[in-house]
Amino acid sequence: MTSAVPNLTTALTGPLLELEAHLLKRQADVECWLREQWLKTPAPFYASVDLRNSGFKLAPVDTNLFPAGFNNLNPAFMPLCVQAAQAAVERLCPKARRILIIAENHTRNLFYLESIETLKDIFEKAGLEARIASLRTDINEPVKIELPSGKICEISPLQRHGNRVAVVDFSPCLVLMNNDMSGGRPAILEGLEQQLVPPLNAGWSTRKKSDHFTHYTMVAHAFAEQIDIDPWLVSPLSLQCGEVNFMERSGMECLARNVETLLTAIQKKYDQYGIDRQPFVVLKADSGTYGMGIMMVKSADDVSKLNRKQRTKMSSAKEGLQVDNVLIQEGVYTFETLGDEQAVAEPVIYMMDHFVIGGFYRVHTGRGVDENLNAPGMHFEPLAFAQSCITPDRLDKPDAEPNRFYAYGVIARLALLAAARELA
Amino acid sequence: MTSAVPNLTTALTGPLLELEAHLLKRQADVECWLREQWLKTPAPFYASVDLRNSGFKLAPVDTNLFPAGFNNLNPAFMPLCVQAAQAAVERLCPKARRILIIAENHTRNLFYLESIETLKDIFEKAGLEARIASLRTDINEPVKIELPSGKICEISPLQRHGNRVAVVDFSPCLVLMNNDMSGGRPAILEGLEQQLVPPLNAGWSTRKKSDHFTHYTMVAHAFAEQIDIDPWLVSPLSLQCGEVNFMERSGMECLARNVETLLTAIQKKYDQYGIDRQPFVVLKADSGTYGMGIMMVKSADDVSKLNRKQRTKMSSAKEGLQVDNVLIQEGVYTFETLGDEQAVAEPVIYMMDHFVIGGFYRVHTGRGVDENLNAPGMHFEPLAFAQSCITPDRLDKPDAEPNRFYAYGVIARLALLAAARELA
Repeated sequence: MTSAVPNLTTALTGPLLELEAHLLKRQADVECWLREQWLKTPAPFYASVDLRNSGFKLAPVDTNLFPAGFNNLNPAFMPLCVQAAQAAVERLCPKARRILIIAENHTRNLFYLESIETLKDIFEKAGLEARIASLRTDINEPVKIELPSGKICEISPLQRHGNRVAVVDFSPCLVLMNNDMSGGRPAILEGLEQQLVPPLNAGWSTRKKSDHFTHYTMVAHAFAEQIDIDPWLVSPLSLQCGEVNFMERSGMECLARNVETLLTAIQKKYDQYGIDRQPFVVLKADSGTYGMGIMMVKSADDVSKLNRKQRTKMSSAKEGLQVDNVLIQEGVYTFETLGDEQAVAEPVIYMMDHFVIGGFYRVHTGRGVDENLNAPGMHFEPLAFAQSCITPDRLDKPDAEPNRFYAYGVIARLALLAAARELA
Repeated sequence: MTSAVPNLTTALTGPLLELEAHLLKRQADVECWLREQWLKTPAPFYASVDLRNSGFKLAPVDTNLFPAGFNNLNPAFMPLCVQAAQAAVERLCPKARRILIIAENHTRNLFYLESIETLKDIFEKAGLEARIASLRTDINEPVKIELPSGKICEISPLQRHGNRVAVVDFSPCLVLMNNDMSGGRPAILEGLEQQLVPPLNAGWSTRKKSDHFTHYTMVAHAFAEQIDIDPWLVSPLSLQCGEVNFMERSGMECLARNVETLLTAIQKKYDQYGIDRQPFVVLKADSGTYGMGIMMVKSADDVSKLNRKQRTKMSSAKEGLQVDNVLIQEGVYTFETLGDEQAVAEPVIYMMDHFVIGGFYRVHTGRGVDENLNAPGMHFEPLAFAQSCITPDRLDKPDAEPNRFYAYGVIARLALLAAARELA
């Protein structure tokens, strides 16, 4: 069978192979532990998680609670999405008959519209009436947009009537946010009597990257203890600096010191596992989004040498001057590449409730293995996973397709659990 | 696309097309109503439902709470089975780590063993340790049987220790019956501290066909009222006679009278819908199983003319002399046929918890459209459904594959709900 799955182009697969083999061997413990966690902290309604697979380490780099990209999933697994959507709706609001999806504001992005139309289709197949609404003030009546797939996407202006929102003649039971609210909590959605998921405090104006990764570190440690692995295999090392202002160059000493400390700690782990690579760290501004406020550095010197352009990029907020908390995180190489041209491939995993419903690779040409693949203007080709993430095969090799996808699903669910605790 | 899906070889598809179109149009009502029902009465752990599709009517003829035939499902939908199994285990016993499946006693039937091995695989993929046990007293140590698929099926003798059952060194949290207990409640399973599903009273020694269909009739009527259809389109007419003894010919007058009454009622419905077919009824002994105790008749005369062989067949219990309740049920033609030789095809739908996970057609050659297709010694070729039953497509024709399968899934769930109420 020929397979369009990326190859791990590194000899350093020892620790990962061991991790994959271990997850398979301890699968009953993994799943039982996760089931218990979801009882304590229900999963967010849906999420996507970007992973990095360096061959010696598998870790999440971003957890999106307002996922787009549903159109990139393998259509063969539509039934899996539908079933998970049924379970999600049933847990949250069993009497729901109508769902209203609140779209992002960039309604000219046809890729995004394909995603939201696919999402609508999932809910319709699951037996709900579904519509799409926009928060944009310049949309005053329903607009229909023809998509490359031939589908027609209809977006209606959101209206508020008392404590309810609606579009035209459609008053939903359930309001599903697919808008990350990076501009702040929309007033029109405050104090609704309808169920709104994810809640308003899940928006990027409230969420902090550092909170998420603090929870993730705790989740990863508890998980690692449960199944007897080194938590480092699934979790980036990290430190934080408060009160950083890149434009005024304040807090830079803390940054440089922590970068140094972290690089030393990473080198120690690399030595432990015999990894012959240069450590790097990623600086993440807490309030950054859409790949803004993210930077890779390989030495403490890099921090002091930041030029104006780089500093502006890190000052992600509109004014460009705000004081921010900065997360200094171990960088994870992406050693999955595809084809002769060695295009870098980054897996993205999708979940509905706590079910893993699929995933795809972002395949980038002309990007380095240590670069941020989800930056503004980045172009990627999606490559849908050929198989599901929930059919591991113990009789096959630990890194066989279904087993690698299973490992992705496990780590993605750890990130999902961190997000659940973050919102709780 | 060429498709191996049976054709409805009848012009009488009017009412069914209307039903399929109606289920699509009212899908939100259908699913919302079902969600509410499962909150009131949780679904059995798993089930399969045999349907009959006459083109003018779609109805269940048998609901099996200990389903076999998992090996006949489309492997492409394994993920759907795994996800549903995870949901089922989570609802019932979230801390379960080990599941023990109790097999039927006919352990020489390789088709059955393929099914139970597939079932075990579903649970293993869902993250449980799984084993298979037998109640047979002549199995004293684990036996390994090589299957046509190349898999090895290992069956171990069930052991009782205090209030727990186990096999060798494997003590399960969850005990799953895949043995229909037609021989009675196994003493070894009474009063377990472990969770046993389905419960002992779900066995055929306790269940009565008439109870099931009484519940089904009520379910079908409530459903029909909910979505404004004639309940007859999804539910066979039926009557009952108590105290029938076929060997002693007692209760035959009641049978003949009710057969007459029912044939007249069916004819009236046929006239209403312009159906040019001869009505027939099916006699079902309450305690019958494996297709025993079932007979088709086309007139009251048929009842009085029963020969000794036929009467023995209807006296299904071992002694062949017991007094039984008999269900007189409207016969539903099977007008789905496959290929040039017009082999009769009967759909069988599988569910785990309340999720429809797939189905297949039993394809019979040399059987009539009004015969019982699940009789002892019957040979059939399984034909897996090419698509799931949960991805209806409103933009396609009402009787397009995904929509026909969706209709099957809806009617099968009505039978599942009847079984749930029966067990409650």
